Amino acid sequence: MLSDTDLPALTDLACRLADAAGAASLPHFRSRNLEAGNKRSGDGFDPVTVADRAAEAAIRAILAAERPDDGVLGEEQAPTAGSSGLTWVIDPIDGTRAFISGLPTWGTLIALDDGERGRIGIVDQPHIGERFVGVKAGAETRAWLSHRGERRAITTRPCPGLAAATLFTTTPDIFTPREWEGYRAVERQVRLARYGIDCYAYALVAAGHVDLVVEASLKAYDIAAPAALVQAAGGIVTDWQGGDCRWGGQALAAGDPAVHAEALAILGDYAD
Amino acid sequence: MLSDTDLPALTDLACRLADAAGAASLPHFRSRNLEAGNKRSGDGFDPVTVADRAAEAAIRAILAAERPDDGVLGEEQAPTAGSSGLTWVIDPIDGTRAFISGLPTWGTLIALDDGERGRIGIVDQPHIGERFVGVKAGAETRAWLSHRGERRAITTRPCPGLAAATLFTTTPDIFTPREWEGYRAVERQVRLARYGIDCYAYALVAAGHVDLVVEASLKAYDIAAPAALVQAAGGIVTDWQGGDCRWGGQALAAGDPAVHAEALAILGDYAD
Repeated sequence: MLSDTDLPALTDLACRLADAAGAASLPHFRSRNLEAGNKRSGDGFDPVTVADRAAEAAIRAILAAERPDDGVLGEEQAPTAGSSGLTWVIDPIDGTRAFISGLPTWGTLIALDDGERGRIGIVDQPHIGERFVGVKAGAETRAWLSHRGERRAITTRPCPGLAAATLFTTTPDIFTPREWEGYRAVERQVRLARYGIDCYAYALVAAGHVDLVVEASLKAYDIAAPAALVQAAGGIVTDWQGGDCRWGGQALAAGDPAVHAEALAILGDYAD
Repeated sequence: MLSDTDLPALTDLACRLADAAGAASLPHFRSRNLEAGNKRSGDGFDPVTVADRAAEAAIRAILAAERPDDGVLGEEQAPTAGSSGLTWVIDPIDGTRAFISGLPTWGTLIALDDGERGRIGIVDQPHIGERFVGVKAGAETRAWLSHRGERRAITTRPCPGLAAATLFTTTPDIFTPREWEGYRAVERQVRLARYGIDCYAYALVAAGHVDLVVEASLKAYDIAAPAALVQAAGGIVTDWQGGDCRWGGQALAAGDPAVHAEALAILGDYAD
């Protein structure tokens, strides 16, 4: 199990994993030679790039050397079982479509899960030079943003309710028709709604600039790190029924409990 | 009129205008004290911030001192008539919604129009530290990206047609129902479509990472600089009938003539 005294060293390690992933992926960002493969055999377009694979390999090489007893759950390779009770949940490039479009809203996601909850969550954007980090200890929960060497504490912001809220989601395509109805029912209540920025939306909730993210069709590696980050910054992240969402599916992340409660009251009718 | 020999000094001035706008707006970006006003009296949400107004005032102060005979057309103040035949077309913060959400895909837009066409177009993103610049001279057209002191030439990329294209637009809200049909008819043909990034999408076309932007309901200050930038980088920017779009309305920006022609063949049926 994980004791709070281990967290600083593990957080340092998590940051080194993000460094290694960025060093592997960034040379491919905006490269004219980047080839987007296609993981799906059907008509969908699911780009997988050499950058994704290189970044996950870089992360796994460090974990294999330094944390051989921990499990690893990543997007690009088969899961690695562990014996320590700790699992690293990683997405080397969340937002591959943004990545291959030259748009710096993709991120490297790194979470450490202790079997009961996420304890560390990182969203890293190396082109902008931003790293959002959240750590949940028993006694102390904190989050910060490092931007090109400058570090400041971040927290979610208060928001009185949906009517005052800013809402983000990635794209209408992530929802089933029924889920889309639920999303739209929330969207109609908010002040401002925008599409398009993948994991970066959760980072903006954690930093107190956005109030709400509503998504679906998530995998564990999409949501583990963003959820731990937002929670460490003071927010609430659940599925559409108020339960644990860290293994994927539908997600509802809010900076303020009032916003979360209002959205949950709507989305509950559309939950899996 | 504008001679090509004047362009280097005017380009330097345009860059200083972007510097001044960034210096005025950036301190407000992600400020917890930012107040978003509401320009509309109805139910829409059209945020105007102190940052917009301060950035336009900073630009206009320089132009009043150094180019008193040029016209100025900006988002926040009434147009200033000029006698030189040159007009600066500026949007201090394009993407105010992104700005107030902490998302660094807004930009400062600066164009210089000679009465017949845009000659300089700048999209500047000061948080990331990126400045996309396009200059159209009679003899020489060129574009470049400066990113935190590093400068490299940019060009649009070749793309054989819509089936291979990446398409961006800001949000479904910018289209009338009829225009939305036209947009969707194009979207169905492309490989990858995404929402959400305002002027930054045109910058990515200019830099060769995105193939197509389709928008509507634009004002002159929304499109003048992006259009000049994309054209200077080798792309084609027109309205949905193939005509001049630099004063606003519907816009179709493509990096490759083949993509532009295919999209135009579809959108022509939905043109104003």
